[in-house]
Amino acid sequence: MYHRPPVIGEYLLRKLQSYDIEHIFGIPGDYVLRFYNLIEQSSIQHIGMTREDAAGYAADAYARTRGMGAACVTYCVGGLSMVNAVAGAYAEKSPVVVISGAPGIKERGKDALLHHKVRDFHTQQRIYDEITVATALLDEPFTAFNEIDRVLDAVYRYKRPGYIELPRDMVDARGTLYQRPSTGGHLSDPDILDAAVEDACNFINQSKKPIILAGVELHRFGYQNKLIHLVEEKRIPVVATLLGKSVIPESHPLYLGIYEGAMGQEDVREFVEDSDCVIILGAFMTDVNLGIYTANLDRTRSVYATTEKINVRYRAYDEVTFDDFLDGLNSPKLRRRRKPNLDWALKGREPFEVKPNAPLKVNRLFQHLNEFISDELTVIADVGDSLFGAVELDIHQHTNFISPAYYTSMGFAVPASVGAQFSMPDTRCLVIVGDGAFQMTGTELSTTVRYGFNPIVVVLNNHGYGTERHLLEGTFNDIGCWNYSRMPTLFGAGRGFHVRTEGEFDEAIKTALAETQHFTLIEVELDKLDTSPALARLAERMSGTV
Amino acid sequence: MYHRPPVIGEYLLRKLQSYDIEHIFGIPGDYVLRFYNLIEQSSIQHIGMTREDAAGYAADAYARTRGMGAACVTYCVGGLSMVNAVAGAYAEKSPVVVISGAPGIKERGKDALLHHKVRDFHTQQRIYDEITVATALLDEPFTAFNEIDRVLDAVYRYKRPGYIELPRDMVDARGTLYQRPSTGGHLSDPDILDAAVEDACNFINQSKKPIILAGVELHRFGYQNKLIHLVEEKRIPVVATLLGKSVIPESHPLYLGIYEGAMGQEDVREFVEDSDCVIILGAFMTDVNLGIYTANLDRTRSVYATTEKINVRYRAYDEVTFDDFLDGLNSPKLRRRRKPNLDWALKGREPFEVKPNAPLKVNRLFQHLNEFISDELTVIADVGDSLFGAVELDIHQHTNFISPAYYTSMGFAVPASVGAQFSMPDTRCLVIVGDGAFQMTGTELSTTVRYGFNPIVVVLNNHGYGTERHLLEGTFNDIGCWNYSRMPTLFGAGRGFHVRTEGEFDEAIKTALAETQHFTLIEVELDKLDTSPALARLAERMSGTV
Repeated sequence: MYHRPPVIGEYLLRKLQSYDIEHIFGIPGDYVLRFYNLIEQSSIQHIGMTREDAAGYAADAYARTRGMGAACVTYCVGGLSMVNAVAGAYAEKSPVVVISGAPGIKERGKDALLHHKVRDFHTQQRIYDEITVATALLDEPFTAFNEIDRVLDAVYRYKRPGYIELPRDMVDARGTLYQRPSTGGHLSDPDILDAAVEDACNFINQSKKPIILAGVELHRFGYQNKLIHLVEEKRIPVVATLLGKSVIPESHPLYLGIYEGAMGQEDVREFVEDSDCVIILGAFMTDVNLGIYTANLDRTRSVYATTEKINVRYRAYDEVTFDDFLDGLNSPKLRRRRKPNLDWALKGREPFEVKPNAPLKVNRLFQHLNEFISDELTVIADVGDSLFGAVELDIHQHTNFISPAYYTSMGFAVPASVGAQFSMPDTRCLVIVGDGAFQMTGTELSTTVRYGFNPIVVVLNNHGYGTERHLLEGTFNDIGCWNYSRMPTLFGAGRGFHVRTEGEFDEAIKTALAETQHFTLIEVELDKLDTSPALARLAERMSGTV
Repeated sequence: MYHRPPVIGEYLLRKLQSYDIEHIFGIPGDYVLRFYNLIEQSSIQHIGMTREDAAGYAADAYARTRGMGAACVTYCVGGLSMVNAVAGAYAEKSPVVVISGAPGIKERGKDALLHHKVRDFHTQQRIYDEITVATALLDEPFTAFNEIDRVLDAVYRYKRPGYIELPRDMVDARGTLYQRPSTGGHLSDPDILDAAVEDACNFINQSKKPIILAGVELHRFGYQNKLIHLVEEKRIPVVATLLGKSVIPESHPLYLGIYEGAMGQEDVREFVEDSDCVIILGAFMTDVNLGIYTANLDRTRSVYATTEKINVRYRAYDEVTFDDFLDGLNSPKLRRRRKPNLDWALKGREPFEVKPNAPLKVNRLFQHLNEFISDELTVIADVGDSLFGAVELDIHQHTNFISPAYYTSMGFAVPASVGAQFSMPDTRCLVIVGDGAFQMTGTELSTTVRYGFNPIVVVLNNHGYGTERHLLEGTFNDIGCWNYSRMPTLFGAGRGFHVRTEGEFDEAIKTALAETQHFTLIEVELDKLDTSPALARLAERMSGTV
């Protein structure tokens, strides 16, 4: 394969490329400069962000849409600034590789107080042990390649982050090629697989009104086609979780909408909860995902399959992979049903009529925005009403909706748009973000200017932490007021609008869609207490537990 | 003391107040709202920042200047966003108390997938175990008060951060008053103390040219007066470390300057390295602090005392407190010396003459800035040349210089100014920050607007990561260009200047000093490769190891 073994930094870059990584997001620092130098010589492009957490969010969005992403930072001051972003990727199963520079192994003698060190030289790795599936310190050349393989394999297999610490005196050290024995992957036990498939098919075949609840793992592991096959061949209707939104094109005739318990649409909720057989595939049973546990799904009438477990009602089947189980459901053992009657769900939306002078309201804003959703747009929703409102948007293609719907970390969306844009150059990002979240990471728009991107950023300005106002109000929910629409002045590029009425919004969004040469920021002035219907329902449920 | 035991949240607030804490920095979130509600009812003021890491930096600066600081955030998405700031406080011994909301104990059953959770419910606490001296999860009322006491005692005693996790269903739970046995503090063994003091005094008394190297612990533990007494009574001249800058008023006649090995002033270096007795007090022997190990101090001619160890040459003395040891040095056992001849150091600065049309250069900029330093200003330096240049400023009073000189995390300064301002309302902050660091946290100026502060922020714009350019150049050191002086447009307040010549800077800084009603940002246009003399020397030393 190689004439002679490459140096460790080079091997790492080649392995990343073999996972389709063409961009690495990050910020340099002295402990990682030597590796940055190698990146610059390679065909991977380094993307400079303004902050490390933003680099983490960008790598996360890249990973979600491309299968793997990478961020590269310096020791501690860099790596520890990215902990929250990587924790979010862990929680939501996004395969992000974190590469951190570090003091050289030879510098570490006598517990030297080198700059950026916290307690001891292993502090950062121990922290990453908590938020990744695998970590490695490449502290000597003999095992380095093997360690790189181990971490990347784990990231690929579990779709969770991994951590590689590369001391600066190891970057140019020549490694030892080592033919790692193939782990052979995770295989099903054929007998248990048969039993599981038979049990599930019998249960589904006997049911009167089965429905599939599709979750985000179908997307992360690339099983969307298996899902579509199952839906179309067996004629079983499908709903998605919040985190799984757009795992199936939302225009599909058998797709009914997002199921999120009492938080979501009433007719969807009823259909799912009346079902005698809910086939839950690749979904995390999380609180926000399922409407703060208002979801009413019991195990006596469900099949629940993920990459971590396969359950048919109360029976668990170990040693069965999700992949094989999905193939089993797609086999002739599961009968093709009659075409379900879904007329109630196909009523279609009323066309939206702009009332030019009407003040903007969250609910109507999203209906309005829905008119402009197209195949070319990727919607990236931040948390709070940016997320709850965006649930209502009809996403035409799969993978065109990205949000931190489980971990719900504020400030994800703007930096994530940078990663999505590099991953999918033909798309245009529509970012929806609240004012509080925008104050956290909105200046990352600077990076979109730098690389010539053109996101449309809708800032929902309700003057504070809106979701919290509905749970418990106090002055702590107030924030400073920015002139968001003046951001272009700061960056010397882009277009800003500050809109208060439906007519103004209509004009702004149309201009934004027409002007593709730069970012457009639309600050939408909202009433402090205005909410989407979903948030209103959520707040009612949650305020008891706050 | 109390008629009946208070609720846990209330007890925590009262204890914080007993440590002189009047402000808590943070961002609310649903898991911490109930505690925020209690803060709002108390006499402690909540200070809303735009981001959690900024809250951490503000609490750090507050802690450095007041003796203890506190930050309050929500679970994981908040707490994990503050890891780097708290790690910096740990590395530089700043007593910051982190209070994190968390899911209620009753909600945690069956490993529920509540939002914001990463791997399990203890992930965040385990991460904080790595970057604090004590952590506590207040999971039941019987031990809660005791646990709060334990963490705060440790923070106070070690001047390092502590972590308290407060599940939302414990905030209003009534605790159990418990008379905690006094730990009695850390006491010296009288015989070992005598031996240590005698050994040190003999060594110093016999020396010809002793000098004190004063470090930051003298400030953190409030021993500045012991230092001044020692210097004045015994007539021993003194230098400070970079991190200890301003631990003694820099106008003191026995103060010679900052010692930082080959990175610093040559005459100071020679004086220290020619000394036959260097008395190192409360200094961290770190790399940047000591000029990347170019410092030439050997143990045969040093007394090295900190809160962690007491060494006289090669002899270590256990069970001796720093406090008692300092008192020992201040006793008659150490002789009063003749007045040292320090004429060489008292040459004074040449008055700075502005060359109105001369383009700005880092070196002259700091000489120029020095003309404006007064007792009313607190200088807060970010990293890189903001720090190395600021070393040259003459700080008149102690505690009026704040910087992350060991951990050197970019983006510290602007948020830290908010904390310093609340801690010392009579001061005005002069913030010096590079363009790269400003892009990380500069929007925290929004918070200064919100609370009516008036920092002067000098942005050294050398178009990228300047320190790194001198270590290893590449396109990765470039960053996007902002119109920094337009920040006032974004916030609707403040004043901005963009200056290129000495004359323009002179006018800008004078205007800034005169206009006390708002922040002033002065963007200083510098050449990409211009450096302070200290950075040039540092880069020369470091470029070999990058």
